[in-house]
Amino acid sequence: MMELENLVERFGASARASLAVTHEGTGYFAVTPKAPYDGELSTAEQARQLFEKADARLKEIGSGRDRMVFAAILLRDIGDVASFNAEWDTWMKDVAPPARACFEAKLASPAMKVELIVICAVPDKRAG
Amino acid sequence: MMELENLVERFGASARASLAVTHEGTGYFAVTPKAPYDGELSTAEQARQLFEKADARLKEIGSGRDRMVFAAILLRDIGDVASFNAEWDTWMKDVAPPARACFEAKLASPAMKVELIVICAVPDKRAG
Amino acid sequence: MMELENLVERFGASARASLAVTHEGTGYFAVTPKAPYDGELSTAEQARQLFEKADARLKEIGSGRDRMVFAAILLRDIGDVASFNAEWDTWMKDVAPPARACFEAKLASPAMKVELIVICAVPDKRAG
Repeated sequence: MMELENLVERFGASARASLAVTHEGTGYFAVTPKAPYDGELSTAEQARQLFEKADARLKEIGSGRDRMVFAAILLRDIGDVASFNAEWDTWMKDVAPPARACFEAKLASPAMKVELIVICAVPDKRAG
Repeated sequence: MMELENLVERFGASARASLAVTHEGTGYFAVTPKAPYDGELSTAEQARQLFEKADARLKEIGSGRDRMVFAAILLRDIGDVASFNAEWDTWMKDVAPPARACFEAKLASPAMKVELIVICAVPDKRAG
Repeated sequence: MMELENLVERFGASARASLAVTHEGTGYFAVTPKAPYDGELSTAEQARQLFEKADARLKEIGSGRDRMVFAAILLRDIGDVASFNAEWDTWMKDVAPPARACFEAKLASPAMKVELIVICAVPDKRAG
């Protein structure tokens, strides 16, 4: 049996949460717009901030926007889904997109209009 | 290190999303009722449509309803959970069910009353 | 190709759901407060019940609170996020926390104020 702990890697860990965790070839994270969240921004504007952060997060863990396998999109107002999707489509231009789900949910801050949960492929340290 | 990209397989990819993605023995997808969504149908009726689509999706990626490991059930009206569960129990008859969570959420279309997020076991291309 | 079914293990399976499922080194489960749910309890009190159940669940499947890779926190009232986080921080004291997301959602029972979805590292039976 391989050492379990060696296979879990945490990125940006605070006392409350890790910004990302990888494990056996799979990465997991949630990403939000730029903090402090600006409730004056539109969902589309917050989405662009979020995607910029997501790109950096993906790169940091050895993945990329072309290696996402699943994305859950949480929108404070599902009525903004069309404007969110326009930004998403730009972000996904020229890459193969993940499977995804999109739903409305109130998020941890009232000023946050979108949050993204990502599961992605990362280098598998078990492979020799 | 194995080739990362070779381990990610996408099914039914459009510009916006893949219908399913598999990666290192695990499959991910979200599935909805039959499109165009018919808001006149009950949650139970939409669930039956969804399960039929899920069976086909699972088969396409080399999995099956008996190989789901996790399911998140999103209901537009959590008050319909009992009628949804009756359909779910029929779907799960004679198979070992996944771990699951169920919660209320407004979905991308007002006519959509249920959506299902699935994580499942698929053949692992690394083995053998 | 390894036997697919041998790699999926279910814990506490009823006709409707498994309490947890493990597959190729990863565990999946959702956990709720102590049943029957007591709507008179605060979110913080229900969270403590939930964490106690989560610890037992994690141990049963060969994982631990220090081996969670992702957690989705569903709160009936997102206004309780601060009191939930205080309990969470106590639970995570001295361990490296998972990546996490937190959002508001009505749950299957009106008396349930919090639910937790967990993805965690477990021993990988493929490793020799």
